[in-house]
Amino acid sequence: MPALMPSRTNGRADLDLRALSLEPGFSKHAEGSCLIRCGDTQVLCTASVEDRVPPHVYGTGAGWVTAEYGMLPRSTHERMAREAAKGKQGGRTLEIQRLIGRALRAAVDLRALGPRTITVDCDVLQADGGTRTAAITGGFVALALAVKALKASRKISTAPVKRHVAAVSVGILDGAVRLDLDYGEDSTAEVDMNVVATGEGELVEVQGTAEGKAFRRDQLDQMIDAALAGIARLKEAQARALEVRG
Amino acid sequence: MPALMPSRTNGRADLDLRALSLEPGFSKHAEGSCLIRCGDTQVLCTASVEDRVPPHVYGTGAGWVTAEYGMLPRSTHERMAREAAKGKQGGRTLEIQRLIGRALRAAVDLRALGPRTITVDCDVLQADGGTRTAAITGGFVALALAVKALKASRKISTAPVKRHVAAVSVGILDGAVRLDLDYGEDSTAEVDMNVVATGEGELVEVQGTAEGKAFRRDQLDQMIDAALAGIARLKEAQARALEVRG
Amino acid sequence: MPALMPSRTNGRADLDLRALSLEPGFSKHAEGSCLIRCGDTQVLCTASVEDRVPPHVYGTGAGWVTAEYGMLPRSTHERMAREAAKGKQGGRTLEIQRLIGRALRAAVDLRALGPRTITVDCDVLQADGGTRTAAITGGFVALALAVKALKASRKISTAPVKRHVAAVSVGILDGAVRLDLDYGEDSTAEVDMNVVATGEGELVEVQGTAEGKAFRRDQLDQMIDAALAGIARLKEAQARALEVRG
Amino acid sequence: MPALMPSRTNGRADLDLRALSLEPGFSKHAEGSCLIRCGDTQVLCTASVEDRVPPHVYGTGAGWVTAEYGMLPRSTHERMAREAAKGKQGGRTLEIQRLIGRALRAAVDLRALGPRTITVDCDVLQADGGTRTAAITGGFVALALAVKALKASRKISTAPVKRHVAAVSVGILDGAVRLDLDYGEDSTAEVDMNVVATGEGELVEVQGTAEGKAFRRDQLDQMIDAALAGIARLKEAQARALEVRG
Amino acid sequence: MPALMPSRTNGRADLDLRALSLEPGFSKHAEGSCLIRCGDTQVLCTASVEDRVPPHVYGTGAGWVTAEYGMLPRSTHERMAREAAKGKQGGRTLEIQRLIGRALRAAVDLRALGPRTITVDCDVLQADGGTRTAAITGGFVALALAVKALKASRKISTAPVKRHVAAVSVGILDGAVRLDLDYGEDSTAEVDMNVVATGEGELVEVQGTAEGKAFRRDQLDQMIDAALAGIARLKEAQARALEVRG
Amino acid sequence: MPALMPSRTNGRADLDLRALSLEPGFSKHAEGSCLIRCGDTQVLCTASVEDRVPPHVYGTGAGWVTAEYGMLPRSTHERMAREAAKGKQGGRTLEIQRLIGRALRAAVDLRALGPRTITVDCDVLQADGGTRTAAITGGFVALALAVKALKASRKISTAPVKRHVAAVSVGILDGAVRLDLDYGEDSTAEVDMNVVATGEGELVEVQGTAEGKAFRRDQLDQMIDAALAGIARLKEAQARALEVRG
Repeated sequence: MPALMPSRTNGRADLDLRALSLEPGFSKHAEGSCLIRCGDTQVLCTASVEDRVPPHVYGTGAGWVTAEYGMLPRSTHERMAREAAKGKQGGRTLEIQRLIGRALRAAVDLRALGPRTITVDCDVLQADGGTRTAAITGGFVALALAVKALKASRKISTAPVKRHVAAVSVGILDGAVRLDLDYGEDSTAEVDMNVVATGEGELVEVQGTAEGKAFRRDQLDQMIDAALAGIARLKEAQARALEVRG
Repeated sequence: MPALMPSRTNGRADLDLRALSLEPGFSKHAEGSCLIRCGDTQVLCTASVEDRVPPHVYGTGAGWVTAEYGMLPRSTHERMAREAAKGKQGGRTLEIQRLIGRALRAAVDLRALGPRTITVDCDVLQADGGTRTAAITGGFVALALAVKALKASRKISTAPVKRHVAAVSVGILDGAVRLDLDYGEDSTAEVDMNVVATGEGELVEVQGTAEGKAFRRDQLDQMIDAALAGIARLKEAQARALEVRG
Repeated sequence: MPALMPSRTNGRADLDLRALSLEPGFSKHAEGSCLIRCGDTQVLCTASVEDRVPPHVYGTGAGWVTAEYGMLPRSTHERMAREAAKGKQGGRTLEIQRLIGRALRAAVDLRALGPRTITVDCDVLQADGGTRTAAITGGFVALALAVKALKASRKISTAPVKRHVAAVSVGILDGAVRLDLDYGEDSTAEVDMNVVATGEGELVEVQGTAEGKAFRRDQLDQMIDAALAGIARLKEAQARALEVRG
Repeated sequence: MPALMPSRTNGRADLDLRALSLEPGFSKHAEGSCLIRCGDTQVLCTASVEDRVPPHVYGTGAGWVTAEYGMLPRSTHERMAREAAKGKQGGRTLEIQRLIGRALRAAVDLRALGPRTITVDCDVLQADGGTRTAAITGGFVALALAVKALKASRKISTAPVKRHVAAVSVGILDGAVRLDLDYGEDSTAEVDMNVVATGEGELVEVQGTAEGKAFRRDQLDQMIDAALAGIARLKEAQARALEVRG
Repeated sequence: MPALMPSRTNGRADLDLRALSLEPGFSKHAEGSCLIRCGDTQVLCTASVEDRVPPHVYGTGAGWVTAEYGMLPRSTHERMAREAAKGKQGGRTLEIQRLIGRALRAAVDLRALGPRTITVDCDVLQADGGTRTAAITGGFVALALAVKALKASRKISTAPVKRHVAAVSVGILDGAVRLDLDYGEDSTAEVDMNVVATGEGELVEVQGTAEGKAFRRDQLDQMIDAALAGIARLKEAQARALEVRG
Repeated sequence: MPALMPSRTNGRADLDLRALSLEPGFSKHAEGSCLIRCGDTQVLCTASVEDRVPPHVYGTGAGWVTAEYGMLPRSTHERMAREAAKGKQGGRTLEIQRLIGRALRAAVDLRALGPRTITVDCDVLQADGGTRTAAITGGFVALALAVKALKASRKISTAPVKRHVAAVSVGILDGAVRLDLDYGEDSTAEVDMNVVATGEGELVEVQGTAEGKAFRRDQLDQMIDAALAGIARLKEAQARALEVRG
């Protein structure tokens, strides 16, 4: 049946990204913010600067970047219970926010940031697949804006953002490699991979998971190729968004 | 000094509402939704319908309407800790969501709703005072849309929404009664009151609190008058939003 | 049917208070204490003084007054689960203790109290309606006794208790305004209102809720009148209890 | 030095119990209740009957007896944090309520009780040492009254209370065995032991703990003797209280 | 039927201990460690030294010894839910670790230990009755090794271990006193007692519980005799293990 | 400096595994068990079979395989707080046990397993790097033994274990790819990757993370090569362990 369909939903080719929009400065209060839309996925990213650091960096002069992730209860097809009401964050949430935090730290020179913490909150207003990668791509913009504001206020002199970091998902469906899966694709994919890379195309994080059946070495190679090509385009969109706002 | 100021921030007169916008159908997944903006306060309200009821209504044939409330961590001036991360909802959150739930139930004939629960999630994207009253006014629209969809799909025959319900804050600052306080006003008000009323001007909930000094009986009367006048205007805006969407 | 009944349970007229007893100094350990009985409702109020303040007052020289509220598991008709065993305080508990705290702070000059915290614990030994208003009326006595002890030990010079604060419930049943509802009345009332006021008859807090149907403006007025008359009588009882103990 | 003191506080001899009072039927709502006072220790015990049993007895036809224990925050010299607010019951609380439950089950024929659970809540209104043993002695009275009510209402035919159960503490201070320690004695005792026994003088539970130094075999013997003598007197007081109420 | 059996499982006589093995130095990281096996019960005990003390000893110059206890989920016949996943330690766990801590503190001169805390973790790898007493007996060896290491590194001069402490269970089955119960015996015993004593035969803790029927004074005496005899043999095994490792 | 060292600690070459031992049947109670040792890392894996399934598989006829992971408090260099005492499992724990569960499910035909759940508990007795990959390799053996027991007892007819699954870590240190990192290597590696693969060399999961600096595409390729070679050797060890036990 998939063979009969000329292409993916919305006429996308296998290696196309979804329609992307980055709206920097969405939030009135945050030091940096960006509303990212990848197809129907919408994530509000805000970067908050605080003049304190967690214990493991305390006294080193360096700063810290961390992330938190949440989904609004009805961001999804079926309403999910609110994590605040359940009294704890689930394993998926914790895993995702650890990933976002690691990815964003790869963009930053923590020493140049100085003794302050930037918390990037990524809240999913609407979910249609790829929320964690959208959070990284949009979170980078929020983070970069917050750092720009610190620099403008002369609190830091050296620019601590060393490089762009962006992320995309890629998977195998019916044997074919497809980029930037939406929810319908993600839930039927045989392999699901999230790739985080720098603006220069170096890898920061690779997380690939087979659902039910394993994948071959050459399939891994194809997925990495597709993801790196997608990330290069995301980096350009980030750069444009930051120029507008700068 | 206040006497010398011609008016409130943004040139509002004492009994003016803030700029109001209701965006029905904001969410792709929810059965009913509305993004409400009152000045810089933005609350995303979604209404989710589920075919089950809580224990205390089970077996009666009636349905239930409940509400949940949350603030994004950086919806406020200073970033707040995420309640999901803290592992519990604070007293303020619980108090507000109980208020919203009671207010919205006053709009609905639970018997006509039939054995289903509508959960109205009110998530504050940006806070600038009056988030709980905005949640009620916008939550009513989301609720009415969800009920309209139930009716359209012939799951219910009688219309369970009996009346409009809307809410506004009112307070006393420097001795003067002011309507629809923003954050700056709210945090310096001597008395802060939230009023919930029906489209016909009957009272559903009155919650007035003196901060530091008590208030006189005649001041209570003036505040109620101001609030009821504001709610009449909010009701009209709700009606227009529902027409557009209907 | 209610028309045939000459009066309320126990022969009370609509605007009568229940039998009231205040037993100051009930507790051996607390700096101030009072066991209040309103009809069959019994609340043990203790005031504990500690030489530290919460973060938001720290360093200002001022003190703080806060309240906690709890119900013994079998204070009610049916045994309730113990909140300590459930691992969290419910929304109703948090809402009530926030109300009690705000009400008692209205009685006190926090600056004159100096850098110390008074915690008023209100534990319901037996519940028959009106536990939160009884907690405020009895909690005031416990608080005033604790302050008196501080003054007697010369830890403070100015008297920080500025005014009496007391509270009562009022409601509408079968269209008639009734004062100081017991549990049976409270659970069938159409409107339920709690009023907190000063000894001089000024309002501190007004919380009125319609259950199912809304109420008219003139009904609000009648309820406030009835409540203020009741609070005047409660204030006299507080004064007598404090004299005895003084 | 102790040798020079003619006796203990209040003129008690080493093997005297404190002044004891049992007030059955203290609570309006509970099926059985008793306020027990041992010196300045006051524990309110209520017995609640519910027609359901825990999973491990379900389907056996037998019933269950369980206990819960709590202290009001200011029942003690210094105010303790409320366990409900801390979000969990401490180890001491859990240990004590397990002890009370085991002790009370030794008094009851669970098969004759039938498929119902009796929960005995023991809430300490004021603490001055020996709260867990007072809870057992007073809890037995509450339990027996609840069972009597079940029998009176013909819900059970055989009397499930097989025997009296009561408890007392005993310790070694300055080398001397002393019965029924108050808080001051308890906190300086070298050995602290709680003994639960039946009305016939058989042992149900023995819990002895050396604080800092170990105790000899013959000291154990003396403590057991003293405790059994005290329990015989407590049993008589229980019987009198039950007669009055019967 | 038991009368026909010549002896207990494995041919043990009533007052025999189970096969015992103490493996000191099991763990690579801990300052002191011991894997204890009593029959099929296996408990891994590690002693960790930290240069800080809990608040109640802070500033006194003395140190502290505390214990924690856990069971691996499948250490038991049926898999138990993991306490970390349930979000809290049960009452049994807390009760046991309080017992182990008290018992081990009886072995140590906390003043000679100096301002440091030794935490003895007792984790049950396999359970077959008597885990808490095995934890005490094995925990003592871990503790003594950690102290020996402190002394060897000249961090302390006086030896803070004053005496051996060991523990054993004893019970009554079919009217006969039996020592060191395995799980099958423990779950059918009429009386179950845990005794902790010093190497010199003085008592540190006695905890005896009747299951269903009470026990006589002379039965208590027999159980204490049996337990003390067993503890004398456990003490010798501890001494041998410490010599080997010394 | 590393260039001057002829090899890794213990004389390992860059692509050598650590000394490996698999001890099947370690546990008396579990349906399947295996103690795995990789160098100084020791993980006790037990597989428990229960005749019930989680909600999302209920009614499908299929079974489920899940994993839980824990570390003993002193399995590490410094003692860690016990997760059961902290009241929740950390993000790292949840992330690891989700990984182990996914990996083991890739080995099993859940339909052939029938409506039962196998829970594989992986408890780290001693940690020296690579605990999650050891848990997968050893957990597979425990799982296979539990399934073998099910088959032997004729509860299932088809063998649900379809293929071997094993895992190993690989990283880049000083620019060189190294296999099976110990703790010292892991904590200084520039890139850290965990690879899970089948006995046939197909990939199940790839998780690579750059610490501080990104990695090149060709480095990814080398790491995958090394890991797959290691996993082939681990598969042989698993097969030998299962033969012995079979």
